[in-house]
Amino acid sequence: MCGIIGIFNNEDAAQLAALGLFAEQHRGQESCGMAVTDGNTITLRKRMGLVKEVFRQEKLEQLQGHIAIGHVRYPTRGSSTQFNSQPHVVETLSGPSYALSSNGDIVNYQELRKHLESLGVYFGSTNDGELLLKFIVYHVEKERMPITGAIRELMKHVKGAYSTVLTTKTKMYFFRDPYGFRPMSYGELSDGTMAVASESVALDILKPNWVKEVPPAGIVTVSDKGLHITENNANDYRSIEHNRHCIFEHIYFSRPDSFNFGQNVYKVRMKIGSLLARDDADLQADVVVPVPDSSNFIALGYSRESGIPFQLGLIRNHYVGRTFIKPQQTVRDESVSQKFNVLPNFYEGKRVILVDDSIVRGTTLHKIVHLLKEAGASEVHLRIGSPMVKYSCYYGIDTPDPQKLIANQKSLEEIREYTGADTLKYLSLEQLSKSVHHPEDYCSACFDGHYPVK
Amino acid sequence: MCGIIGIFNNEDAAQLAALGLFAEQHRGQESCGMAVTDGNTITLRKRMGLVKEVFRQEKLEQLQGHIAIGHVRYPTRGSSTQFNSQPHVVETLSGPSYALSSNGDIVNYQELRKHLESLGVYFGSTNDGELLLKFIVYHVEKERMPITGAIRELMKHVKGAYSTVLTTKTKMYFFRDPYGFRPMSYGELSDGTMAVASESVALDILKPNWVKEVPPAGIVTVSDKGLHITENNANDYRSIEHNRHCIFEHIYFSRPDSFNFGQNVYKVRMKIGSLLARDDADLQADVVVPVPDSSNFIALGYSRESGIPFQLGLIRNHYVGRTFIKPQQTVRDESVSQKFNVLPNFYEGKRVILVDDSIVRGTTLHKIVHLLKEAGASEVHLRIGSPMVKYSCYYGIDTPDPQKLIANQKSLEEIREYTGADTLKYLSLEQLSKSVHHPEDYCSACFDGHYPVK
Amino acid sequence: MCGIIGIFNNEDAAQLAALGLFAEQHRGQESCGMAVTDGNTITLRKRMGLVKEVFRQEKLEQLQGHIAIGHVRYPTRGSSTQFNSQPHVVETLSGPSYALSSNGDIVNYQELRKHLESLGVYFGSTNDGELLLKFIVYHVEKERMPITGAIRELMKHVKGAYSTVLTTKTKMYFFRDPYGFRPMSYGELSDGTMAVASESVALDILKPNWVKEVPPAGIVTVSDKGLHITENNANDYRSIEHNRHCIFEHIYFSRPDSFNFGQNVYKVRMKIGSLLARDDADLQADVVVPVPDSSNFIALGYSRESGIPFQLGLIRNHYVGRTFIKPQQTVRDESVSQKFNVLPNFYEGKRVILVDDSIVRGTTLHKIVHLLKEAGASEVHLRIGSPMVKYSCYYGIDTPDPQKLIANQKSLEEIREYTGADTLKYLSLEQLSKSVHHPEDYCSACFDGHYPVK
Amino acid sequence: MCGIIGIFNNEDAAQLAALGLFAEQHRGQESCGMAVTDGNTITLRKRMGLVKEVFRQEKLEQLQGHIAIGHVRYPTRGSSTQFNSQPHVVETLSGPSYALSSNGDIVNYQELRKHLESLGVYFGSTNDGELLLKFIVYHVEKERMPITGAIRELMKHVKGAYSTVLTTKTKMYFFRDPYGFRPMSYGELSDGTMAVASESVALDILKPNWVKEVPPAGIVTVSDKGLHITENNANDYRSIEHNRHCIFEHIYFSRPDSFNFGQNVYKVRMKIGSLLARDDADLQADVVVPVPDSSNFIALGYSRESGIPFQLGLIRNHYVGRTFIKPQQTVRDESVSQKFNVLPNFYEGKRVILVDDSIVRGTTLHKIVHLLKEAGASEVHLRIGSPMVKYSCYYGIDTPDPQKLIANQKSLEEIREYTGADTLKYLSLEQLSKSVHHPEDYCSACFDGHYPVK
Repeated sequence: MCGIIGIFNNEDAAQLAALGLFAEQHRGQESCGMAVTDGNTITLRKRMGLVKEVFRQEKLEQLQGHIAIGHVRYPTRGSSTQFNSQPHVVETLSGPSYALSSNGDIVNYQELRKHLESLGVYFGSTNDGELLLKFIVYHVEKERMPITGAIRELMKHVKGAYSTVLTTKTKMYFFRDPYGFRPMSYGELSDGTMAVASESVALDILKPNWVKEVPPAGIVTVSDKGLHITENNANDYRSIEHNRHCIFEHIYFSRPDSFNFGQNVYKVRMKIGSLLARDDADLQADVVVPVPDSSNFIALGYSRESGIPFQLGLIRNHYVGRTFIKPQQTVRDESVSQKFNVLPNFYEGKRVILVDDSIVRGTTLHKIVHLLKEAGASEVHLRIGSPMVKYSCYYGIDTPDPQKLIANQKSLEEIREYTGADTLKYLSLEQLSKSVHHPEDYCSACFDGHYPVK
Repeated sequence: MCGIIGIFNNEDAAQLAALGLFAEQHRGQESCGMAVTDGNTITLRKRMGLVKEVFRQEKLEQLQGHIAIGHVRYPTRGSSTQFNSQPHVVETLSGPSYALSSNGDIVNYQELRKHLESLGVYFGSTNDGELLLKFIVYHVEKERMPITGAIRELMKHVKGAYSTVLTTKTKMYFFRDPYGFRPMSYGELSDGTMAVASESVALDILKPNWVKEVPPAGIVTVSDKGLHITENNANDYRSIEHNRHCIFEHIYFSRPDSFNFGQNVYKVRMKIGSLLARDDADLQADVVVPVPDSSNFIALGYSRESGIPFQLGLIRNHYVGRTFIKPQQTVRDESVSQKFNVLPNFYEGKRVILVDDSIVRGTTLHKIVHLLKEAGASEVHLRIGSPMVKYSCYYGIDTPDPQKLIANQKSLEEIREYTGADTLKYLSLEQLSKSVHHPEDYCSACFDGHYPVK
Repeated sequence: MCGIIGIFNNEDAAQLAALGLFAEQHRGQESCGMAVTDGNTITLRKRMGLVKEVFRQEKLEQLQGHIAIGHVRYPTRGSSTQFNSQPHVVETLSGPSYALSSNGDIVNYQELRKHLESLGVYFGSTNDGELLLKFIVYHVEKERMPITGAIRELMKHVKGAYSTVLTTKTKMYFFRDPYGFRPMSYGELSDGTMAVASESVALDILKPNWVKEVPPAGIVTVSDKGLHITENNANDYRSIEHNRHCIFEHIYFSRPDSFNFGQNVYKVRMKIGSLLARDDADLQADVVVPVPDSSNFIALGYSRESGIPFQLGLIRNHYVGRTFIKPQQTVRDESVSQKFNVLPNFYEGKRVILVDDSIVRGTTLHKIVHLLKEAGASEVHLRIGSPMVKYSCYYGIDTPDPQKLIANQKSLEEIREYTGADTLKYLSLEQLSKSVHHPEDYCSACFDGHYPVK
Repeated sequence: MCGIIGIFNNEDAAQLAALGLFAEQHRGQESCGMAVTDGNTITLRKRMGLVKEVFRQEKLEQLQGHIAIGHVRYPTRGSSTQFNSQPHVVETLSGPSYALSSNGDIVNYQELRKHLESLGVYFGSTNDGELLLKFIVYHVEKERMPITGAIRELMKHVKGAYSTVLTTKTKMYFFRDPYGFRPMSYGELSDGTMAVASESVALDILKPNWVKEVPPAGIVTVSDKGLHITENNANDYRSIEHNRHCIFEHIYFSRPDSFNFGQNVYKVRMKIGSLLARDDADLQADVVVPVPDSSNFIALGYSRESGIPFQLGLIRNHYVGRTFIKPQQTVRDESVSQKFNVLPNFYEGKRVILVDDSIVRGTTLHKIVHLLKEAGASEVHLRIGSPMVKYSCYYGIDTPDPQKLIANQKSLEEIREYTGADTLKYLSLEQLSKSVHHPEDYCSACFDGHYPVK
């Protein structure tokens, strides 16, 4: 999980890029970076830390130029050092310079890197953004391809997920893998500036005139002459005839106010809640409580459908970031306590429908169910807004090894028992398919192991 | 607005204090500090910054001792420097040492400080915590009073709000002003450790066996022999026979999961929402939307009473802290955009009941109503969970000068017009009195100018 | 050992004070600070670190005002925290504010602090500068003395060494203890600015028109009306009729280009070298080598007198500050190696006169003699530019406990043996008295234990 | 100007490398870095700042491994960013990893980089170390050469100065350009550890058993099997039959206690002083004063030969680093005042021989001569320990454009007039040739424009 931004033709490009990254901060809090060009040089700044720490006003003022691309990083490939953060830059003495930011994950990274190394292309990081950049630069500089040609070559050979923005000193390009794994939107701001981002919310903060999604396998070139869209036939670059959008962008990753894959995220979430509720026609309960904030809209959807009152029964400490203080003997379970607290004097004798978006390891839910029971809940019915996650993701989500996925290791009943819930239901794959307009266009690999790209 | 913590008799005192401060971070993000004693020396650390930045694991490990007191600060009195942050410490060569943290504000600060200065007591800051500390130290060291006697003397002469914790190298004391302006709770942890905090949520994170509120004018002494409570008659120290709890602790400041002044904060908020709804019996609308997060429960209460659906129609960026990037020409109104975004494709043609907790200056609500209208809302009915704030607070809340309070300067209709709402209603003082159990025990100075302490 | 600075009546006061402190950096590298006033407020900045780190250009620009006092600190009394660094500030609500920096050490600190505490004056540090400041403030504010009267009162009661600068918002005062232990010079800059400093070199960098020394027990008041000198009779404030200048300011502490106690430091040092050489009339040797940099001029004086060639035979690494890397098994004696290296291919078969200014613990000289022998020196004759240091200093020099002073524990012959030198001679007290103009005006306590102030 | 270090086969490799870099700090204060390997991974740390700041104890402890290479940087090629600092690292997926540090400058950098870029090798910096590293990696990985073969290939094609250390995860290599522009020494420590450094002083601090210089065009391989030296015939790789050592390493750059190009630096400097003095047989003067510290030994040599007394008449502030506070109107010429102060009461009526090592722009000497005259010097005779510097250096010294070299623009008499000296003499090229053992082995390009490598 990462987020990207690109701004073209605005003298406050760095400011706008920082605002966009800030709106995408939920996609990665580990490091962030920006490359800005004024047509002559490319200035790069990237650091460990949050957008508002790395890009303070005085730093932004040093990033002069009319094109800016940026990145927020949640670590997937490569260790957590400044050298693995993005954007990556290649400058050539013969003329052109390139900077690139990407969101996604490359399945055949090892193979491609070994190939490029065998051609004399060397690497300073283990980050997939550097691979994409050097792949393109090699094909442009050595193979004399035009940049869009090199990107098409990339689409042929690079397997995996990528929503990517590339800039030279004069033109900006952005493109998306043929399966459309990750979201990517672009738009025009009120003053003619062009902008691209992982999520539409990063454009919203910039007050766009209009916003569109980049089609799978689409390449957009932005230059002084305006926008040029190369709408490639995605099927030429993929083994199946459908997209493979990541359903977890709807369920968990994206902000609820984003518009991804042709749909409003919050509406998909409410629909999921509604579908869960329909399946519980006979369940008697007093209150629907979400695990905040990701499950709020699923719980709202459940409440609307069922008529059972919604309550923000778990309070989240928004200062937490990662767990702050490491566990000590004196304070049990405090990692979940640092994050969540129950409403006091609320649960006594109540039958609670607890809603979460998914179960990965199950440890947090185990603790939360325990908290509710301790607080007096007479019943806890756990409802999950996604099917059982049994397989690892190779397209940009940091899921653990399959052995650490509880649904890969345990049965439904065993999971229920582990969490301590009285009943447990997951959303079925069939229900899930009703929550979106074109279910055939979604990847279900983490549920059923049908990987679209090996 | 500040928050305090005290931990007695735990070898991880600093760790526990940090956890408590972390749970009170919403009460002050400017600076934080901690004084820890092992019985021999007092170690002090205080800095500008958030709890998780100032008290990283390696710093906590340097704060050895079994008693810790701490503070998070939202600036009220004194400028924003490290010297004005708390705790304050006085060490005497002749023996005893003292450290103190306080939440509140002293009305007769100038007079008391001049008096102490005339006695030879000098000050290194303009912070009221230092005043309280030196007042006590002077009466103990110079006037030979016992510490509890000095605190009683303080209650006689110091006018204003204070929920305060004081520690020596062996004993911890905490006390609360006779009016009970600010909340203060204490409890025993499962291992016998005693803890005190501004809000009960800071004790919740420490897994208490039991939690109680410190009574107005109450003094609690904690020593190796256990807890000793000096329950003074508050009326001996005040001009009226009732408490003066700050109603805004219920409406806005405290976390919804806190238990203050004998009531659950979230329940008061839901009741307020319910009272607002009863007054809107004839209002036709499609959705109830809170300004998150402070107004969530008020809006939930309104929705329950009215039957109009609740929706989280404004999405808040939780990374924002203060407004991140300062306004530029290119991006209009982005300070509110950085904080809030509307759910897309939601408002078109909808009649919206927008709920906020209060109006101070009115500028943010003006922008939010504008956002909703731009998003297509056909009507915006603004409902406020408190009466008109016409007067400044002198008891610990950082309200601006009366001239900057919109309700001090404009009529109801003028405010409605300024915000752009179609209708505007405030909670009346009479309604407010129904939202709490003992309305006579609350301060209403910011609404009606009846200051309990001059 | 510390250094002070004061600047009066210059709109770049903070800049000039920083330059002065920078020239006095050798007097203290642990922390530094500055208090600046523009007539209305006093702005304080003090931190651990070097002058050029703490007072970067952007920080200096925030220190606006026409009066600035500053301090560099070498830790003597009080632990190494920011709270113990200087200047100290007292602001009173009733009007006046005060800031103070001092160089020296107070012998009756405990007694005075206990007395002030019994009067209600409390302390935030264990630093003697805070004691001096609060002593004065108490007598001015409580006892209604004029400031110069309070300083005279201070001279009566405070035992020890102090060269001190005090400022209010409008006037600057500086004064020196009745014994004149530490140096203190003042002067007028070309543009009428008045400046005071511990050493004359700190004025040199400011291009003064003239420079004078502050007489022992002298008090200088600087105001808009100019300079007023209160030349108290020092004998009224001391038990002997002579000054007690610290001879080590000549031998070691002060920069060689300073003018202290009526004499050029470098000339005293050369004279000492000359006196040592006269005593070695029969000594055959090939080269005179100083332990750099403090002994350079002593060795030059020895070389001139004896005719034996001078050589910079030990090279000092000026980046060292304190010893950089702590000793490990793999690298023996590297603390001295980090600081000094021998000229290669130089010592083989040479008879070396090695000159150092003093011996405190003796460990460094032990290693240096060893280095020279390893490098091939056939003889090492160690000559010391001061008598045997047998007693601790209580007037501002950080000497260790007497048991750790090698000359307190061992005989001359034992010291020679420990160092590994072939011969060892100290400067005698009698010789030392010939190196200065008025030997009766110097303190010899560290040599003979005759402490002028108990 | 830069400095390098390499340590092989020591479990405290990072500690030893830091000590070595510390001893070479004078060769570059802008940034420093280190790459350490434990045989499995290479850990890199590089930052702007001094060695003792960047490599604090806790950071060194994180750099685990038995091979370490390091670098201190004085900026020559490439701008001042972390990305341009050294070492550079290339890791290949197929197996080997490489890290490299180099001192020198590549004349045909542009041409070589363009060539490598045309082969698909891309760059993340404009630093010549990265060029050398990728040149080698390309020839090893792509052209299948052994590493020593790739280094020989490098010697054929790379024009310029390089004293370079390269490490893989198991072997360390170091080599020097065929002209031997920059110094490079290696040795064995007492415990069998092998070490290499730019200057012998960096080995001295590690207590070596023996030290040798790397011959021009020499390649040394260090592995578990010990040391293997490939002594190439330098003439095979160069257009002339002599070395081209940089004479300024003797005159100015190297520490006086270093042994470079077969000679003791301090002895060359004393010889230069002696040669200058012989040419002044009839000059009557009272004192010889060096511009410290670089000219100390030249002045000592002059004094010995002439019999005119030596005096450290200018005192240098060793805390200065770069000029600390930027010039303001109020303080004239303070950039030189921050660095140097005259001995007070010394110069009055004296005829001074002022000795400096070289004149580049002449501005500092102009100010120093002025200082001496102001201090009362009746005559100032300026003597320079090198010929007129008329041409820029392209082999690792940061000389300005020829137009800014005063000797390129002005005649001897004009320079004398500009400096304000009464007489001015440079060392002649003929004299210079007498100061070293093999004058034919030195580069004189900056004096006569005869560049050995175009």
